[in-house]
Amino acid sequence: MNKPKNHILVIFGASGDLTYRKLVPAVFDLHHQKLLPKHFAILGLGRTQLENKEFRTKMEKGIKEFALHKTDNTEILNDFLDKLFYYSFDTKSAAEYKGFKEHLLQLDQSCGTEQNFIYYLATPPSMYEIIPAHLSAQDLGNENHGFKRLIVEKPFGYDLKTAKKLNKSLLHNFEEEQIYRIDHYLGKETVQNLLVTRFANGIFEPLWNRNYIHHVEITSSESIGVGNRGGYYEGSGAMRDMVQNHLLLLAGLVAMEPPALIDSTSIRNEIAKVFHSLRPIKEEDVAKQVVRGQYIASKIKGKDVKGYRDETGVDPNSRTETFVAMKLFIDNWRWADVPFYIRTGKMLPTRVTEIVIHFKATPHHLFAKDENIVKQHNQLVIRIQPDEGLLLKFGMKVPGAGFKAQNVNMDFHYSELAETYVPSAYERLLLDCMLGDSTLYHRGDAVEAAWKFVDPIFNAWEHDSSIKVHGYPAGSWGPDVSDDLITEKDITWRYPCKNLSDDGNYCEL
Amino acid sequence: MNKPKNHILVIFGASGDLTYRKLVPAVFDLHHQKLLPKHFAILGLGRTQLENKEFRTKMEKGIKEFALHKTDNTEILNDFLDKLFYYSFDTKSAAEYKGFKEHLLQLDQSCGTEQNFIYYLATPPSMYEIIPAHLSAQDLGNENHGFKRLIVEKPFGYDLKTAKKLNKSLLHNFEEEQIYRIDHYLGKETVQNLLVTRFANGIFEPLWNRNYIHHVEITSSESIGVGNRGGYYEGSGAMRDMVQNHLLLLAGLVAMEPPALIDSTSIRNEIAKVFHSLRPIKEEDVAKQVVRGQYIASKIKGKDVKGYRDETGVDPNSRTETFVAMKLFIDNWRWADVPFYIRTGKMLPTRVTEIVIHFKATPHHLFAKDENIVKQHNQLVIRIQPDEGLLLKFGMKVPGAGFKAQNVNMDFHYSELAETYVPSAYERLLLDCMLGDSTLYHRGDAVEAAWKFVDPIFNAWEHDSSIKVHGYPAGSWGPDVSDDLITEKDITWRYPCKNLSDDGNYCEL
Repeated sequence: MNKPKNHILVIFGASGDLTYRKLVPAVFDLHHQKLLPKHFAILGLGRTQLENKEFRTKMEKGIKEFALHKTDNTEILNDFLDKLFYYSFDTKSAAEYKGFKEHLLQLDQSCGTEQNFIYYLATPPSMYEIIPAHLSAQDLGNENHGFKRLIVEKPFGYDLKTAKKLNKSLLHNFEEEQIYRIDHYLGKETVQNLLVTRFANGIFEPLWNRNYIHHVEITSSESIGVGNRGGYYEGSGAMRDMVQNHLLLLAGLVAMEPPALIDSTSIRNEIAKVFHSLRPIKEEDVAKQVVRGQYIASKIKGKDVKGYRDETGVDPNSRTETFVAMKLFIDNWRWADVPFYIRTGKMLPTRVTEIVIHFKATPHHLFAKDENIVKQHNQLVIRIQPDEGLLLKFGMKVPGAGFKAQNVNMDFHYSELAETYVPSAYERLLLDCMLGDSTLYHRGDAVEAAWKFVDPIFNAWEHDSSIKVHGYPAGSWGPDVSDDLITEKDITWRYPCKNLSDDGNYCEL
Repeated sequence: MNKPKNHILVIFGASGDLTYRKLVPAVFDLHHQKLLPKHFAILGLGRTQLENKEFRTKMEKGIKEFALHKTDNTEILNDFLDKLFYYSFDTKSAAEYKGFKEHLLQLDQSCGTEQNFIYYLATPPSMYEIIPAHLSAQDLGNENHGFKRLIVEKPFGYDLKTAKKLNKSLLHNFEEEQIYRIDHYLGKETVQNLLVTRFANGIFEPLWNRNYIHHVEITSSESIGVGNRGGYYEGSGAMRDMVQNHLLLLAGLVAMEPPALIDSTSIRNEIAKVFHSLRPIKEEDVAKQVVRGQYIASKIKGKDVKGYRDETGVDPNSRTETFVAMKLFIDNWRWADVPFYIRTGKMLPTRVTEIVIHFKATPHHLFAKDENIVKQHNQLVIRIQPDEGLLLKFGMKVPGAGFKAQNVNMDFHYSELAETYVPSAYERLLLDCMLGDSTLYHRGDAVEAAWKFVDPIFNAWEHDSSIKVHGYPAGSWGPDVSDDLITEKDITWRYPCKNLSDDGNYCEL
């Protein structure tokens, strides 16, 4: 495997949780596998005053707790810690960037990193326009000497307008090719595996279209509530938190055309094409096509559970949705009139993310004497988490006289693979960025297209007070009305794991 | 379920092994499930002198040993034994049929079976033309009063000429609709399941043709030799014993068009159509398309094993084949130029019967950097025995950086179904015959078509002494030259279970 070029990873917001729990442990894992370049450093930035030594001590703790590799080899660990540096300044203040620049270039000199810099914005979104502008003003954005890459954490805007403004600002200071919009979701093995499953198999692609697929269902449920993140969640809601990014991305990966190549441009072009093909939902249709809900107090396994409006930091009259179910269409040749049903929510019966491809029934029901069979059809369940794997439901003969069919399961569990090392999402994505591969990062136009699709929904919710926020008891599969989205007879959502294990939190494929 | 009409099952050759081990135990199983009509009797016939009582005592023993249902309920058992009768006469002698007729009609009167008779020829093939003629001469074949059905055991002829002669003779005395050519192979659940698997699933049929299938492989191997049946086997060989009937039937079930209905005429029409579409193998091509072999002495797990020519009853210069591998084509729109490779033999490493559908690789190899992947393609393994089930090989992502694919297995084991009662092949087939359903019996025209296909092979083997009988060590997968049938690069036979369990006789899917 190619090693990245020598470089410095510059982390803005280095005193925060993300750096401590995710970023530095992920880079340590790269170090442990000898995937880092010979000359490499991490420069943590933040307002908090920290000496290099303090920073290293703190990061050592984070590594020991969160890295996937063992940390008992002190040589490996210390070798890595030696590459960590910290510089304190007010990243809001333009005036302070001169000193930062000097410090950075000095470090670059001493480390031999050839002015290759990756800037990671592990900061609140309010800094996403400020920092790049200040970097650019100091001439730290151009690639005359060494590469300069900018990693931006989601959310990428709050709606179409703010997303456009953010993109415009970023592009004023950096080129699109330099911008890496990170979403840990795309770093997940099983999300990437969707591409391989679809395009490495001769048998799936011929079936993967409106001729053979009846509808697609995508569910991402959580069994927990907002916890102590109520304040943040109030300004977000399920549509922004899950649908606009993760669920639309999954729909994009399911629906995309085969890319010409496995590379950043080809794959991201195809995903963007799907987003551009989403049939717009008019404001007047939102009530029909989209269901929003909010969990209400309930008992789960005998234990009292709070409703959303009773959570800390939440407005007692909040209309923020903790559940969304919707029906959408992709207007292109492959998918015309094939409904995509997507659903996400908090405080549902279990944590599961899965895609269900519902194939059409056979054109002629040879074995249809049994009523049930007519309703049944082949289903391919692609489980993203937990218990990652594939499950195919298909008809087989009921033993005994006659020819009756029944549905049975054929399955594959990702865990059956030899205990291969599966990198964390951040490890995978950081290495990709170091290598200059943006395949698994969001591209600006696709982000805007996704916002464009959901924007009318926000508008309708805001302006049409007749659109209800349906209460649903915590621990249920959301408001009953979400079943009405599927108008066809005999078809319902798949309810995975009706019989949950005792912890109510694990769902076998 | 409909019950059969009242009738008598008349078994010719009732003192033989088949009656003792298979037929009467299977009918007892029907009795146990209350699937027999109210008025029913078995009349055993044979030259051996037996009283009803002796016959019943012998059959009781057979039932206790071979029936699938428990026999500890003496009421159920005795109730059944009371329905058994025996009549001794020389079935070769026309003169004796008058007495037999009187006896039969008397029994019919006393049992109230309305002159519905099923004649089962559990006799040597030499009797297949004689008995029906004598029955017909006594007016015991026509259906003026009650139904008359004739069950004939395989082999149905020895080659095309004798098969035609047999059919002609049978049809002289009975109508085709009255003739049930039994082959226990078609009574197997998993063979019938082939039909359901293909035609109850929306996803398989679109792929089931020359556009997506590269080739089809059918293997039926035995791990034992001819044992004490050497004398019989000398006059048969693998081509007659396995290929002409079982393997061609499996090919027929894999290749047939969807029948209009699940009924005898529709299904058997489609199978016959496949046989008629078999591309004839010219005598001069036999050497290229067909490999025959004979097992030779070897050691298996340290134990000495005899060669075929050393077996009891076998000619020390025998050229009878104990192994056949061949390549065939089905010349129709669905299968043009898709090779079917079939293979059978004795003293191979394990007992297994399976069909492997090899799908074509993807039209464009997106993940093809890894050489191995190009060679791999989706495979659907339909296991008939043992460990009946389905296995689908498909590509998934290798965990870690990049996009590499690897083949993994998704499987279903028939044994996962709730412990449903699976009837024996004879039970299933006998009940079908009692109900007048000949779907799972061979039809005369199809039998002749199958002989027509293999006849040139016998001719070539007989006339062209340059066509070798290849020796293969007992315990191997047959002569190496059988690999040469598959001319394409990187494609070989599937060798199931290279690592056998210690008994060398069980092969997991």
